Amino acid sequence: MRNNPVKAITVALDVMGADVSPESIMAGGFEAARELGKRLRLVFVGKREVISDFTDAHRELPENIDIEEAAYAVAMSETPTEGIRKKKSSIAVGLAMQKEGRADAFVSAGNTGAVMASSVMTLGKIEGVSRPAIAALFPTVHGQPTLALDVGANVDCKPFQLYQFGIMGSIYASLMTGRTSPRVGLLSIGEEKSKGNEQIVQTWDLFKKSALNFIGNVEGRDILTGRADVVVADGFVGNALLKFAESVEGFLTTKIRHQVQTNIFSRVGAALMKPFLRRLRMTFDYSEYGGAPLLGIGGVCIVCHGTSSPKAIKNAVITAAEMVRHRIGDNIREEMATNDNGIKNGQENKRENRGSGVIRPIPTSNQL
Amino acid sequence: MRNNPVKAITVALDVMGADVSPESIMAGGFEAARELGKRLRLVFVGKREVISDFTDAHRELPENIDIEEAAYAVAMSETPTEGIRKKKSSIAVGLAMQKEGRADAFVSAGNTGAVMASSVMTLGKIEGVSRPAIAALFPTVHGQPTLALDVGANVDCKPFQLYQFGIMGSIYASLMTGRTSPRVGLLSIGEEKSKGNEQIVQTWDLFKKSALNFIGNVEGRDILTGRADVVVADGFVGNALLKFAESVEGFLTTKIRHQVQTNIFSRVGAALMKPFLRRLRMTFDYSEYGGAPLLGIGGVCIVCHGTSSPKAIKNAVITAAEMVRHRIGDNIREEMATNDNGIKNGQENKRENRGSGVIRPIPTSNQL
Repeated sequence: MRNNPVKAITVALDVMGADVSPESIMAGGFEAARELGKRLRLVFVGKREVISDFTDAHRELPENIDIEEAAYAVAMSETPTEGIRKKKSSIAVGLAMQKEGRADAFVSAGNTGAVMASSVMTLGKIEGVSRPAIAALFPTVHGQPTLALDVGANVDCKPFQLYQFGIMGSIYASLMTGRTSPRVGLLSIGEEKSKGNEQIVQTWDLFKKSALNFIGNVEGRDILTGRADVVVADGFVGNALLKFAESVEGFLTTKIRHQVQTNIFSRVGAALMKPFLRRLRMTFDYSEYGGAPLLGIGGVCIVCHGTSSPKAIKNAVITAAEMVRHRIGDNIREEMATNDNGIKNGQENKRENRGSGVIRPIPTSNQL
Repeated sequence: MRNNPVKAITVALDVMGADVSPESIMAGGFEAARELGKRLRLVFVGKREVISDFTDAHRELPENIDIEEAAYAVAMSETPTEGIRKKKSSIAVGLAMQKEGRADAFVSAGNTGAVMASSVMTLGKIEGVSRPAIAALFPTVHGQPTLALDVGANVDCKPFQLYQFGIMGSIYASLMTGRTSPRVGLLSIGEEKSKGNEQIVQTWDLFKKSALNFIGNVEGRDILTGRADVVVADGFVGNALLKFAESVEGFLTTKIRHQVQTNIFSRVGAALMKPFLRRLRMTFDYSEYGGAPLLGIGGVCIVCHGTSSPKAIKNAVITAAEMVRHRIGDNIREEMATNDNGIKNGQENKRENRGSGVIRPIPTSNQL
């Protein structure tokens, strides 16, 4: 441990197993290390010779970057079960560091299913959390993104599990964006309580009697308008929406290319508007948000897209460090211990609601 | 009945109850009447004085347009149940014409829930169809749209109901677009059969043993790429996706406006690119497709967006006439009578699969 006046946050960064090269991942790591300086200690997790190849050729490792040897990657094609079995993979090694107290967070652009499963196995779930969830940010017209969860970790969720997603999402949005009372919406197919499926109608009641800032049902059209700060959905629906949204950028790119080729005025216009068109497409480029946090696990873990840009990796590392600083896990743990809305471990609890039911006022980012 | 050499198809067009004015709906009707000429007989359904106000001021009714008096509209805010009770609403009157054999199809931009419920009540379901579905078209990169169903009529669908959506969607895509063996995909969260929820895993088996051109699971990202011609989903998921997709156009419009205001080069570029940007936005403007057909009812009915442009109404009227011409309902009826994949009315049928399991080779559009 280096002798820093501010205790550095240690983030283990998996440089293997992504669709993009280790270089691209490391480039993002370098940027994060430069930006956070002494507040960050970054550990590249991967084959030392691969890492050295890149670092020797390009630059010395900065003072705040170390290497942790991992023998191999989990391939993108492997199932979570196959992934878990690989004890010396970069995923296993990176998560083990956190379990052993040698790292505070883990970031990976590798096999999402394997990272998710290994995280739960290695770091465990927070007590009281039935199912950890993957949270993702969607762009909105006013620029402040909407947090949606779950986006793929869980299907066939029970109402109390969806309710827990709302609690975790609300805590995350409060702490990470300084919104004092995030608006929580339940994704459904109409605003009225009666609209929706069985699962959602039952979940509505749980949210309604909670002290979350529940704004009721929201619809697919409300995500990009930012009507809610947190949108709760079953992982099946959330995943379908996220993948659809992720595909919009490629769709726009193709359409822009086709259109521009057909017209001289468009060609001139397009040249002038190039930066604008890029920004337009980027509003749907999810890697800009730097990855999706797993909420409800006993640690900090962020999964990134397999094709992440260096910028996305940089953002993910910074987000991971922020999650550690804001003690997201501890806050979820405390909330779960008190605010169970009469429900514990899937059983309706006949006793009086023991929790405050209130997300505690949370200091904003600036105060921390 | 006029003495046409080609028997005209009669489409009843609800001019009331939309968010846009009756004028806008009628304008679309006029366009369709002009385009189809003697092949169409169009009936404006609504208050005669409202219709006359518009027609007197602007033009005479063409020979192929008539009026059917309806006393009032179903408001957008009314529930389907409230809507059904209004016996003299434009929805009830328009559908009654079809029941009485005085019209072949009905098009409405009014209250979707009320149109759906009234259609099923008035025209009934096709024998063997468990639940009629709403089908919607999504744009794709290659321009040939993807048909997705259900997009909101049914939630908590059983596997055999999803399977029926696949049959109906396949018939619609075959007949209306001339695709001989439409690729049917099941919306899930991964390509492998094991990915997905209970409902989808069970549905996969039904599709697999059918003779549909089942290409397996597709994901949210595959819709805009056009990987499947028909995407089958529970109405809850389909509705969330459709509404999200519909909101992309407004999102892009706002982003374009903001960006263009900030930069002189963008402003010049934007002026040159105006038609292009409009087309770009229009790729996500679903009214361009002219509405969503209800499949599985004993008649032809198309629901349009409440804010439909005249062009959208024109397209919907033309699509309705095409559905009549291609006998979509008869084809679904025949298929349901033979191809039940061992399942009838929700009961696993222990007897040998009696149906051919094959969507009959269907003449292309040109041959009809």
